[in-house]
Amino acid sequence: MEQGTGKYITGGVYVITTSSGGIINGQAASWVTRISQEPFWVAVALYERNYTHDLLLESDIFAINVLKEGQQEIARHFGKQSGRKVDKFAGIKFHKAKTGAPILDDCLAYLDCEVIFSRKFGDHTLFIGEIVDEGVLNEGKPLVYRHEDYF
Amino acid sequence: MEQGTGKYITGGVYVITTSSGGIINGQAASWVTRISQEPFWVAVALYERNYTHDLLLESDIFAINVLKEGQQEIARHFGKQSGRKVDKFAGIKFHKAKTGAPILDDCLAYLDCEVIFSRKFGDHTLFIGEIVDEGVLNEGKPLVYRHEDYF
Repeated sequence: MEQGTGKYITGGVYVITTSSGGIINGQAASWVTRISQEPFWVAVALYERNYTHDLLLESDIFAINVLKEGQQEIARHFGKQSGRKVDKFAGIKFHKAKTGAPILDDCLAYLDCEVIFSRKFGDHTLFIGEIVDEGVLNEGKPLVYRHEDYF
Repeated sequence: MEQGTGKYITGGVYVITTSSGGIINGQAASWVTRISQEPFWVAVALYERNYTHDLLLESDIFAINVLKEGQQEIARHFGKQSGRKVDKFAGIKFHKAKTGAPILDDCLAYLDCEVIFSRKFGDHTLFIGEIVDEGVLNEGKPLVYRHEDYF
């Protein structure tokens, strides 16, 4: 299968953050969707080799930081390096959400989540989150993922 | 929870089709994401009261028809009425995919899927599909969901 149609599935651009045992980390991600209106639940798929993935498996909490148009550089910052080697939050303004996950002060909006279900599907783990807090922090339009912005 | 942030989760616009016991149907949907690169798997959340949802639970096959910019009217056609009352495919050009699900000839691209996992989450069922066939049928850019196009 060539997966030529994969690029036709539209996604936003997010920084998925978590906090586990005093360690905070975050990664760029685009494979995110709503899955239930009532209760308000979302699904996030994270690559199995990412550090955020491993921390999230431990903590069972995460925040979706929604990036806005023009914030591709923040996505690259959180997407092109590993939290195993660098502190991605050095120089980044953030605060802690209700769950303890870090929220980027400059993001458009955030959804703070507790994991209610997770399961490995192929090379990713799907995390289903119940939204326990949310907020809109800035004005703008959500950034839509385009492959050419990052590769 | 006000779900004020729900609109900040970006999705495309799709017609999810299926075929069960000789009956074909389809519905507009936006809650779709990729979840695994290898194998190539996708996730689709469908509202539990929709006819397509019920048929899909029986058939365990579906196709994602990706709509392109300007095709909001097709989304309204498949989203604003029920296949329990009308034949949504009357007057629509389509052909059958490998699984038997109908593919709209005018759509941008399609992903033909077999269900490998399904589970109810809140008021929707999440269907995980393995892509068994795919194709790009027309030129254009994927339509991005905007609430104001439909309500």
